[in-house]
Formats: sequence, C-alpha cells, structure tokens
Amino acid sequence: MTDQNLPVAVVGLGPMGAALAAALLDRGHDVTVWNRSPGKAAPLVAKGARQADDIVDAVSASRLLVVCLADYDALYSALGPAREALRGRVVVNLNSGTPKEAREAAQWAEGHGIGYLDGAIMVPPPLVGHPGSLFLYSGPTEVFETHKETLADLGDPTHLGTDPGLAVLYNTALLSMMYSSLNGFLHAAALVGSAGVGAAEFTEIAVDWFLPSVIGGIIKAEAPTIDKGEYPGELASLEMNVTTLKHIIGTSDEQRVDAGIPAGNKELLDRAVAAGFGKSGYSSVIEILKRGAA
Amino acid sequence: MTDQNLPVAVVGLGPMGAALAAALLDRGHDVTVWNRSPGKAAPLVAKGARQADDIVDAVSASRLLVVCLADYDALYSALGPAREALRGRVVVNLNSGTPKEAREAAQWAEGHGIGYLDGAIMVPPPLVGHPGSLFLYSGPTEVFETHKETLADLGDPTHLGTDPGLAVLYNTALLSMMYSSLNGFLHAAALVGSAGVGAAEFTEIAVDWFLPSVIGGIIKAEAPTIDKGEYPGELASLEMNVTTLKHIIGTSDEQRVDAGIPAGNKELLDRAVAAGFGKSGYSSVIEILKRGAA
Repeated sequence: MTDQNLPVAVVGLGPMGAALAAALLDRGHDVTVWNRSPGKAAPLVAKGARQADDIVDAVSASRLLVVCLADYDALYSALGPAREALRGRVVVNLNSGTPKEAREAAQWAEGHGIGYLDGAIMVPPPLVGHPGSLFLYSGPTEVFETHKETLADLGDPTHLGTDPGLAVLYNTALLSMMYSSLNGFLHAAALVGSAGVGAAEFTEIAVDWFLPSVIGGIIKAEAPTIDKGEYPGELASLEMNVTTLKHIIGTSDEQRVDAGIPAGNKELLDRAVAAGFGKSGYSSVIEILKRGAA
Repeated sequence: MTDQNLPVAVVGLGPMGAALAAALLDRGHDVTVWNRSPGKAAPLVAKGARQADDIVDAVSASRLLVVCLADYDALYSALGPAREALRGRVVVNLNSGTPKEAREAAQWAEGHGIGYLDGAIMVPPPLVGHPGSLFLYSGPTEVFETHKETLADLGDPTHLGTDPGLAVLYNTALLSMMYSSLNGFLHAAALVGSAGVGAAEFTEIAVDWFLPSVIGGIIKAEAPTIDKGEYPGELASLEMNVTTLKHIIGTSDEQRVDAGIPAGNKELLDRAVAAGFGKSGYSSVIEILKRGAA
C-alpha cells in the first residue's frame, strides 16, 4: 500500500510547520492545518489548506498527523485532548528534544494505540520540499515504510532505526560537530586574517578542498578504528599531535589571535595522554569522551 | 623560460624529503640528494639519484634546492656553510614553523642573494607526486613562476602571495580547523555510539553529506559576512545558538557522554555574548578571536 496524495494534517504553524504544510500542498496533498493561535493559518488557507476547527477536527481529517511544535511539552499539551481520536492514526513528530523525551513520547503514543515516528529536520525552512534536504526518522520500520512516499514530499527521508531516540540524537550529534567545525574555521580565518587574507579567499582552500578531502578523508579512514576500539599510533601518535597543537597555540600568540580554541583542543588531548593514550592514534580521544562527564 | 627536467637538489631525507626526491626522480629530473647522516640516501641512489659529497656539492649541482628539514634552525645549520655557493640559486624550503620564522628565513636568503620560496606540504609522504596533492607556496611571484613546472612534479602548486609567511600560516590555520573538526566528530560519534550506532555507519550521514553540504555550505555563506565585518542576526542570533549548545550539553549528560567539547564551544559563545554580540549572527564570534589572547 502506498500513501500517495494521502490527506495530511499539520499541527504547529511556526516558520518550519508552515514550510512543511506548504510543501505538502505543492505536492498535491489535501492538507488540514491547526495552530493554537489561528491567525497563522491564513497564508496556507490561501494556498488551498483547510483550517481545522480544533485539534480533534485536525486529527480526524487524516490518518497522518505531522507535528512541529516547540518541544515535547507542547506536543502533549496540543495532542492530549485528541488522544482518543488519534487511536489507529500516525503521528510524525518533528520537535527538538532529547532521546529520552523521544522514547517517552513513543511510549505515550503506544499506550494510546497511536503509530509514532520521531524525526529531525536537517535543513532550514526555505529548503523544505527540495530534493537533497535530509529528514531523519526513527521508530517502527512498518510505520516509516507505510508513509515514506508522503514523507519524501518534505525532503529525503532517512530511517535510522527502530529506537525512537535516534533522530534527535543524530540531530544533536551533528549540531555538536557543526559548532566545533565552525569555531575551528573561525579560528583559522582569524589566523590567516591576521596576515590580510580574507575569509572568502581562504574558503577556496579551506572549504573547497581541505574540509571534504583532508578532514573528511581522515574521519572516513579513522571510523573503522573507532568501531574496533583499536588505535594504532605508530605513524602518528596522540603525543605528536599535542606538539602540533602547541605550535598552533604559539603561532596564534605570535599573530595576536586568541588561542582559546586550540588550547581547548590541546587540553582534551592532554587528558587522553594522562589516561594512557599518548602512544595511541588520534581517535583514542573518543575513549575519554565515552567515559562520561569529567 | 621553463625549467622542465631541471636538475634538482634535495636536502633532508626524512620520510617526506625522501618522498620529494623519489617524485622528482619519477618525473625524469636529475636529482642530487644530501642528508646529514649519509645512510638515508641509499634507497634514492638505487633509484638513480646522485649522493652529494657535502652541502656545497649538493648546492652546486642545481639552480634549485628543495629543503625539507625539521625546523628553521636546521635550515640555517645545513645551508650556512654553503651560503656563498647558494648566491643566484633558489631555495624552496618546506620546513614547519611560524610566519615570523619564514619571513626571517626569506630575509636571510635575500641578504645572501638567494631566491627563496617558503612552502607547506598538505599531504602525507605517500601522496607526494600524486595529482590533487596540495603544496602551498609563498614568496616572490617570479621565483614561483620560474619553477612552477618542477614544483608541479611534487603536487599541485598553489602560490598564496608574496608574504613568505603565508604558506606556514595557512598550514597552521588549516591544522587548527582540522583539530576542532576531528574533536567535534569524535564527540558526535560518542553521542550516537551511546545508542549503539557505529562510527563508520554515522559517517554515511556525518561525512558523506553533513560535513561538505551543511557545514561547508554555512561557512561559504558566512565568509563574505566576515569580510564585511557585519553580522546580521535577525534569522539566527548568537543567543539562539547558546540555547542549542545548552541542549547539546544536556543531551550529552543524559547519554553519559563527556560534555567538555560543547561546553568549550558554549564558553566561546558566552564570551561573544558578554562582548555585546548576543543579537548578532554566528560569525561575530571571530571578533573575539581577532582581539588576541583572552
């Protein structure tokens, strides 16, 4: 069974929820929308959406409810009054939150006979509905497969697994990687900027080549090492990388650029060396991270 | 004038120097090699290199001397006795060091009538000589252009500008970006690993898609903002990113993963907020870095 052109209800019409509803309208779905403050529905109604009278009306309009609210509390608050109407239907929840919150929401749904997928949208609202825009989902495989075609109208749907916490966990992990990479770039841009090189000029090497080829290449090569839990360090040990970081800190000082970012990276490596990984390869740093809060 | 098949002398035969000499031999150059401890020359002599009797002999064998030693002190120590023989010839120095050291070496060379390029090799020894392997150079344009063809036999030569400090500065900046990105990936891998997701599996989204498309895309979009020094924050302010980092720290705690990396990123943003950039866009963080040591 496919669900092409299935009627869909969209709950929560902030910038992202509105983008989701608009993408579904563009692909020919019957779309019912609901928002706590009703004014936000008007632009979507102008595009052909139907505004629900209340949450039970919204739920009753479709077998599939796409929810995009601020957090899990808002989810319970919005859907609670309609939980009987939801029985036998599917909720696709795109709130931000923690894996624990996602798993609790899945249990709540299961307890009320509601199908449930948790999801994370990896693009900003203007890219919703475009090919290549990644949407991550986790939860029961059969629920994902049943609604995959409708979800593909929002962006490329990727099913991470049955643990409902995976989508928000991936999202959080990718964002953490993003902040470290952005801050690393800003320090690098400040360094070359101290010699008059512009940030845009620097990206021609730093982003067009170094980020995907060198950094991406190293990570791809190191990942199997992490999964084995073996970190050969004959060619390049953690201690050698500490020396390089001292050099980066020294050059930052020489160029009068704040050295806080490389100093933080060196502190982490120092902790790994102190834990006995000095002769191990770089990725052994993850053993420190897996041990929990310092 | 081109310098194709120019005789070249290579000084310093560690793993990288030996790779440089081998690449030049492979491309048909007459190669003379010299190393302080003579035993290292044997494998290259077997490939057709000539071992110089001493540094003056090495210098006299070619108009172009490629130097790959441990640091700038080793450069002065090795070339000092041959400085009169070097007059009118060109030194391409591929040591690691600071921009200040590179500029001093360029002045030393100029003072002795020696042409000088400073360079940085952006690949490990096994990739020397392969197309796509980036070599960065800085120093006089005419020296670079005269020897560009020979340098292309080592890897793709990129001339960054006439300031001799640029090659080592770029190298240091890119390495700083690399450490931040690698550590960010390791934290992300530890987070998804806490739910049983393997690092190699995670790279299929984190590296094949997120790193080049999202992180690379954000950096390319932000770079002109940095060059203008204007950081519009209407759509996404620094304060909003602090909230996201709090969420990442909270999820790390929930998953029993060390939160030191996102906490360090948040501290940097906190400093930027305290300096008045709370309503500005993300890249305003660079203003803190440009202000020098905290």
